[in-house]
Amino acid sequence: MRFLHTADWHLGKRLNGFDLLADQRAIFEQLEHQALEKQVDAVVIAGDLFDRAIPSEAAVNELKAMLAALNLTDHLPILAISGNHDSAPRLGMASDWYAANGLHLVTSFDQAFDPVTIKDTQFFLLPYFTLQAARNYFHDDSLTDINKVMARVVERMQAQFAPDKQHALVAHFFAAGSARTAESETLIEVGGLSAVAVDLLAPFDYVALGHLHNRNALQAPRVKYAGSPLKLSASERQMEKGSWLVDTAPFKLTWLPLHQSPDLVKYSGSFADLTAPGAGDATNYCLIELTDRGEIPDVMARLRVHYPKILTLSWANHQTTAPQAKRLAQIKRQAPLDLLATFFKESQGGQELTDQQRAWAQAALEAVERKDD
Amino acid sequence: MRFLHTADWHLGKRLNGFDLLADQRAIFEQLEHQALEKQVDAVVIAGDLFDRAIPSEAAVNELKAMLAALNLTDHLPILAISGNHDSAPRLGMASDWYAANGLHLVTSFDQAFDPVTIKDTQFFLLPYFTLQAARNYFHDDSLTDINKVMARVVERMQAQFAPDKQHALVAHFFAAGSARTAESETLIEVGGLSAVAVDLLAPFDYVALGHLHNRNALQAPRVKYAGSPLKLSASERQMEKGSWLVDTAPFKLTWLPLHQSPDLVKYSGSFADLTAPGAGDATNYCLIELTDRGEIPDVMARLRVHYPKILTLSWANHQTTAPQAKRLAQIKRQAPLDLLATFFKESQGGQELTDQQRAWAQAALEAVERKDD
Repeated sequence: MRFLHTADWHLGKRLNGFDLLADQRAIFEQLEHQALEKQVDAVVIAGDLFDRAIPSEAAVNELKAMLAALNLTDHLPILAISGNHDSAPRLGMASDWYAANGLHLVTSFDQAFDPVTIKDTQFFLLPYFTLQAARNYFHDDSLTDINKVMARVVERMQAQFAPDKQHALVAHFFAAGSARTAESETLIEVGGLSAVAVDLLAPFDYVALGHLHNRNALQAPRVKYAGSPLKLSASERQMEKGSWLVDTAPFKLTWLPLHQSPDLVKYSGSFADLTAPGAGDATNYCLIELTDRGEIPDVMARLRVHYPKILTLSWANHQTTAPQAKRLAQIKRQAPLDLLATFFKESQGGQELTDQQRAWAQAALEAVERKDD
Repeated sequence: MRFLHTADWHLGKRLNGFDLLADQRAIFEQLEHQALEKQVDAVVIAGDLFDRAIPSEAAVNELKAMLAALNLTDHLPILAISGNHDSAPRLGMASDWYAANGLHLVTSFDQAFDPVTIKDTQFFLLPYFTLQAARNYFHDDSLTDINKVMARVVERMQAQFAPDKQHALVAHFFAAGSARTAESETLIEVGGLSAVAVDLLAPFDYVALGHLHNRNALQAPRVKYAGSPLKLSASERQMEKGSWLVDTAPFKLTWLPLHQSPDLVKYSGSFADLTAPGAGDATNYCLIELTDRGEIPDVMARLRVHYPKILTLSWANHQTTAPQAKRLAQIKRQAPLDLLATFFKESQGGQELTDQQRAWAQAALEAVERKDD
């Protein structure tokens, strides 16, 4: 069979105050065109359909229109899960009715072990979940990290494997490195939070991931992030956006690019050059880098005349001192919990976090993480 | 055919801080039992399924379970509309998928003219709407009051009437009086806001209304409020709660009572009697009226030992003066806009509201009204 793998739609996301719904609709239309042109048998959406637990009514209307286009108009089966940005109960309110029409939307952990079979492939739909949800499901309080949980999850899914079928996993989490790396190094931590080791996912013929917005964030032949179809922050300016076209037998992976307009564009130069007559960009979201050394009065307002959709302004030659730069680089390398511990120690006259305080901080960081990316 | 008419579920409603979801679930189970025992062909829910535009995740899960029980387990068609408490886009996100399974949930005005036919009856599902939505739909800015709109709505629906069918309307608004009354009297105003004249609804064989929580709020043989199935405020303590069982041909209307436990119960007496050993009520929501004349220190905390679910405390013999009582009675009779105008005049040294200010106030009151009852 052949399916399209997309993820991280983040409908309703605002970019520095700009409403992206029209851009999201335009990219969706390209994506729908890909699905139809390539005659796929299904579309996989690996979580974060909405940008927030309580999306605006406009974003709700948009998702309704997109799902209706694919599922009701184009008659395509959909395989979707909730991500950390979605409210599982709100998104999943109608899942029993959706499923009757081939829109398989899984929002709770316990539904992940009941595969959906389409043609030659069994799809296991694993929504974003908390460690506590996994501990409750397995009645096992020893499941204290994501890799222990995923070993159990994969084992339980394997018990459902039909031997004559291909097996695909759709999931929404950090994946990185390998299990061996996990034991010996700290690379497996992404932003200080543990990631699923890709080795654990080896039993699947394909793993369609959501969560990270960069399709190149992970290099593994059959475990892929689709990334977000639209650039959702300044840091995504140079990322390739698109969808994966997956053929199951023989296995073949094809990257289908998506082209956004308005795009995110960086302009670098002197204030005089960037605001010269005729200079400017009214269409795109702009990242402006000024090469001037002095201060410029009222700089944002004057730039906006030429670049109405400015996202960020930076100064190429307003330098930090060498010790400042070194210290900043050190700080940027620290995992969030270590950073917090350092801050606590420095601000509390050398006192270390107690184990209890460290546990509270870890829980709080995990809660924040649920809302990130 | 035979159907059950219910309305105003207000899932997620809290009563003086008490979570009512468990009570709402218990009443729903009685209602489901009525539908099954009476072998109805459909269940009508006339708006305000949720208590608020953004219900809690728990309330979302509850509505999902209730609709799934009736529609997916019991295989009953459902005819439902959004009320003023519901967010039409949020509630209606999945309506296209629901409809494929016989759950007809209409949340936008323009869908009201496309009847759903079940057995011998055409059902017209008219959700709560704003005058502006109606003006947009009819491209007619002269539609400035609800009765002008409803005349047009009914006319357009009549154009869809199949002559060999019965015709039912499901709607969510204030209905009162008659068109004649509307021209000569002010009775047609409920809380200062205009009501639909029941005469306008004469073309229908039955009108299943939601909005008012008292099934006796309107006396008309074929235009009925079902009321809320649960008592949702202290003022509903003595209302009969239940559902209407409607047979279409021959037309027959039967009231099916619902019995709630915990109930709302009023206790009146002296503090000494109500807190005597053995006195009290741990089960029900309690309205306490004390007959004592003096002050009682720490009265609420001491009453709660015996009546943990107190909703209100009143004093039978703490009298207001006669002039105060008269003034209060006058105030209570005023429509909200008049009350505001009086307040403005008294607080602004006799200055009257300008026409512009009056229009703003009217718009604000209408916005508030959308959230009321």
